Amino acid sequence: MESMKRISRVAIVGGTHGNELTGVYLVKKFERFPQLIHRASFETFTLLANPQAFKVGRRYIDQDLNRCFHSQDLHNPKLYSYEERRAKTIYQQLKPPGKSPVDLIIDLHSTTANMGLTLILGNTHPFNLQLAAYLSSINPLVRVYNGAQSGQKSAVLRSLCELSFSVEIGPVAQGVLDAYFFNKTEELIYIILDYLEEYNQGKVPQTKSALTLYQYVGSIDYPRNENGEILAMIHPRLQGKDYEPLKPGEPIFLTFDNQVMTYQGESTVYPIFINEAAYYEKGIAMCLTEKYQLTV
Amino acid sequence: MESMKRISRVAIVGGTHGNELTGVYLVKKFERFPQLIHRASFETFTLLANPQAFKVGRRYIDQDLNRCFHSQDLHNPKLYSYEERRAKTIYQQLKPPGKSPVDLIIDLHSTTANMGLTLILGNTHPFNLQLAAYLSSINPLVRVYNGAQSGQKSAVLRSLCELSFSVEIGPVAQGVLDAYFFNKTEELIYIILDYLEEYNQGKVPQTKSALTLYQYVGSIDYPRNENGEILAMIHPRLQGKDYEPLKPGEPIFLTFDNQVMTYQGESTVYPIFINEAAYYEKGIAMCLTEKYQLTV
Repeated sequence: MESMKRISRVAIVGGTHGNELTGVYLVKKFERFPQLIHRASFETFTLLANPQAFKVGRRYIDQDLNRCFHSQDLHNPKLYSYEERRAKTIYQQLKPPGKSPVDLIIDLHSTTANMGLTLILGNTHPFNLQLAAYLSSINPLVRVYNGAQSGQKSAVLRSLCELSFSVEIGPVAQGVLDAYFFNKTEELIYIILDYLEEYNQGKVPQTKSALTLYQYVGSIDYPRNENGEILAMIHPRLQGKDYEPLKPGEPIFLTFDNQVMTYQGESTVYPIFINEAAYYEKGIAMCLTEKYQLTV
Repeated sequence: MESMKRISRVAIVGGTHGNELTGVYLVKKFERFPQLIHRASFETFTLLANPQAFKVGRRYIDQDLNRCFHSQDLHNPKLYSYEERRAKTIYQQLKPPGKSPVDLIIDLHSTTANMGLTLILGNTHPFNLQLAAYLSSINPLVRVYNGAQSGQKSAVLRSLCELSFSVEIGPVAQGVLDAYFFNKTEELIYIILDYLEEYNQGKVPQTKSALTLYQYVGSIDYPRNENGEILAMIHPRLQGKDYEPLKPGEPIFLTFDNQVMTYQGESTVYPIFINEAAYYEKGIAMCLTEKYQLTV
């Protein structure tokens, strides 16, 4: 950590998915009251990532913007869907040629799953881990998830910076503003900005901290027929049980003809993104994680 | 009631809104297992009302199908948006020229509001009121709402029949199947079909029943700026409090600059559809009802 340079530019991104309103309206609030995110030692700027999708109340127009940030795609002139063009524009804004790039990205999301206040790490850079440990130490609602190896890591917006994470809150329905989670997210952002300010001033203690980390290990799709139609729902006993242990043999699905399907893995896992609306089309009924106690 | 003829055709409609999945998958289930909705004395048929909207995971393609059933619109050849054409097709299916029309419509919906298991009456026909009283007497989760005078009555699908109602369940996020509510809705449908069977057989007792009815009296929009952008969220103390009393002076909104806005009405009301995702664009933050104890 000592060798890292100070942070000079921070981006707060909302509306990467147009129907996740918390981030959109937090960005609008910060643009109206910029003093809220002003800190002396660095510049903070805001970005409404997918304005067209927000305008029509959908996750995206042509494709999921948060899967458009593969490095080769950003440099491929043949890609020109709305989101592919937005991704290139955002890349230019966050990493302008000949100018200082953004050092840290906070990308604001919401989920229909019961994930509380989740921090999704961009990667396991020591700075990200220590910030995560700090946030979960002062707010017991905070969960820390590392989605690397999920196959999406390098395509998501947060992958544009080494220092980066998404804030994923829920349960919040698509197209809905929930004041409780809005306020919790807002508080978390101020705590992060204050932490970055202290870091720049050399005031962050260099002691080791405990961190509970949920590491992605795979995902499970809904059972489907030959046409891809789902044949089951999340079992009512699993619904809302994100971050709770799921043991082999426990119910995960209830089919439409009332058959219980159980988890067939070999060891206990901790499912998250259980019944996320946007993941039906991605073939994901839930993501599975393993729980680790780290010292970082 | 005695003079009413027996019921011979019943329609169970799902997916009038394409992202309200409970009704869609109940209809699919009934089409796969038709014996579940078979009763001896009448014919039950199913209808997936907006298949294109379901396919793309949206409420509608061009416009809200459940506002396309005005009688004059159904007979206006100049209207040809996707939903206007669907409405005409559905009208032909439910009221085929020269054949017996459907006698009773059950239209299945879900809401992001905390409305439990709500029965929305098509109108206050004595049969609808008595069926509602019966259902709420055997299932205390059932709430009964009369939306007539909301200005939408004659434009909704259920308005095609005198005997009709919508089932509105929640909170369920758009694009999500919730097994608990799926099962509750399914049970309710069987109870309704059994009631209709008993009615046809003359076995429904003619005694008076108590009914708690929530009557629409108006709606409140979010505070907005001159561009129509919302300036506040549902206050966290009101969120999820559908069907609970709201008194003058109690909080309803929290503005983005943390001002509390209170209810300015003159008497206690019972808000419902609080924070329904699909109603942001309709200018409705909540519907207000008055609570009546009736004998029907």
